[in-house]
Amino acid sequence: MSGFESQKIEKVSIVGVGLIGGSIAGALKERGLARVVTGIGRDKVRLRGAFEQGLVDIVTDSAEEGADADVIVFCTPVERIVAGVREIARYCRPGTIITDAGSVKGTICRELSEGLPKGVSFIGAHPIAGSEKQGYESARSDLFENKVCVVTPQDGCRENELERLKGFWRGIGCQVLTLSPDVHDEILARTSHLPHLVAAALAGTLEPKCTPFVGSGFRDTTRIAAGDSKLWQGILLENSESVLAAARNFDEVWKQMLAALEKKERAKLTELLDDAQRKREGLTS
Amino acid sequence: MSGFESQKIEKVSIVGVGLIGGSIAGALKERGLARVVTGIGRDKVRLRGAFEQGLVDIVTDSAEEGADADVIVFCTPVERIVAGVREIARYCRPGTIITDAGSVKGTICRELSEGLPKGVSFIGAHPIAGSEKQGYESARSDLFENKVCVVTPQDGCRENELERLKGFWRGIGCQVLTLSPDVHDEILARTSHLPHLVAAALAGTLEPKCTPFVGSGFRDTTRIAAGDSKLWQGILLENSESVLAAARNFDEVWKQMLAALEKKERAKLTELLDDAQRKREGLTS
Repeated sequence: MSGFESQKIEKVSIVGVGLIGGSIAGALKERGLARVVTGIGRDKVRLRGAFEQGLVDIVTDSAEEGADADVIVFCTPVERIVAGVREIARYCRPGTIITDAGSVKGTICRELSEGLPKGVSFIGAHPIAGSEKQGYESARSDLFENKVCVVTPQDGCRENELERLKGFWRGIGCQVLTLSPDVHDEILARTSHLPHLVAAALAGTLEPKCTPFVGSGFRDTTRIAAGDSKLWQGILLENSESVLAAARNFDEVWKQMLAALEKKERAKLTELLDDAQRKREGLTS
Repeated sequence: MSGFESQKIEKVSIVGVGLIGGSIAGALKERGLARVVTGIGRDKVRLRGAFEQGLVDIVTDSAEEGADADVIVFCTPVERIVAGVREIARYCRPGTIITDAGSVKGTICRELSEGLPKGVSFIGAHPIAGSEKQGYESARSDLFENKVCVVTPQDGCRENELERLKGFWRGIGCQVLTLSPDVHDEILARTSHLPHLVAAALAGTLEPKCTPFVGSGFRDTTRIAAGDSKLWQGILLENSESVLAAARNFDEVWKQMLAALEKKERAKLTELLDDAQRKREGLTS
């Protein structure tokens, strides 16, 4: 049993105590998995709030102080992960595992595959859980229960560290799956980044005269468009190539649907809607 | 007080006792608004099920029998409403109001604005409530509570009948708004039919290798694509002109987003996502 699930971790640091970071912290504390959880951030008022809510035991804006941990989890916007990891790694002791919760993995994992101090490892991760809400106030210690967490080890990753990291994510409730960083980005472009872009484009068409006539269909379809635009532009740009490929997949189906509608091809339209219905029904809930 | 809300209706007939028809029937019974609710349909086994569930008092597959009512509500797929109304109207006594719950109003209201027996009126309606689920088994007597119902009277509609009809929909919990049939179709194309098409196109891109990595974002965005494809091809084709116009609105925003992504224009992408975020946040829940 080399995973963390069998043992309490001494110290965990969470960089960025928002919805995701706060939920990880909350899960660690509620399950009694870590003795000390440190919250690291730039905004002292927000950090203090997370502390007062009982999510973290110590708060600091200093990478040096926060570096004293067995596991460090980056939950910042994706574009800040690489520089943040490099900075904190300088202060880490050998054996520290650094991971993250970013929605894009390719560039981050590639850049962090070298140049870290000896004995300090970065292994990317992406727990597929979230909400259109933001901030530690919306954190939920059960956010990860039965959710998939993808870990994206690179060549040369030490097996025992990978196992420890998987144990960490399992410990807070995740089902862990492994993908290469690039395959992760390709798949998540389709399952997460494309839906965000589509939902945002749809929400963008909304005019005031229409709002009284919006029902649950429009609400559901656009829910994620209420997500933080700054966070999402980072994700979309960081994974732009795969997102554009996914958008071409969407356009293909979309154009077939519009053509069938334009030509009033009932059979073709039904076939396309049938295919969508079957695929959606194949997903639970 | 000419509306039904102030008085019990003697008899209501529901044509098509599925999710919507069953929910109307259930609401009428639970609120004690009608003495007798008759369910009319083609499938005797399904009708019997709705009867056994206590949604309706009488079931029949005969238009003649079901015509004995003060209010008749068509809850069939849209393409069957016009012929169905014409058939049952032949047997109605003067003073009967026929309405419907169809998602498209223009063609239906236009066709039914003439040719009905003297004293029998059709006034279109569309309660904006529903679910991706189908069938009376999913009916809920509170489905319409605080939901908008659009009524779409045409020129020549008698004021007292319009008031009675509004009272009917208010009676089961709706907030009633009035639009012309064509404006209804234009707006609902944007708030309901376009989202369905977009959700279906997105669901259509799903490949089996991706399903383990689907999170709540994809699920929400595609939820309505699980709706009955037969029902929806009818709605989309019946309102194809307005749906195609709405699709052009979507394409405009969509193409701007893809261009910003392709050219890595961070400011432009953020601006578009911001606009979507603000619009979506403007909708409650």
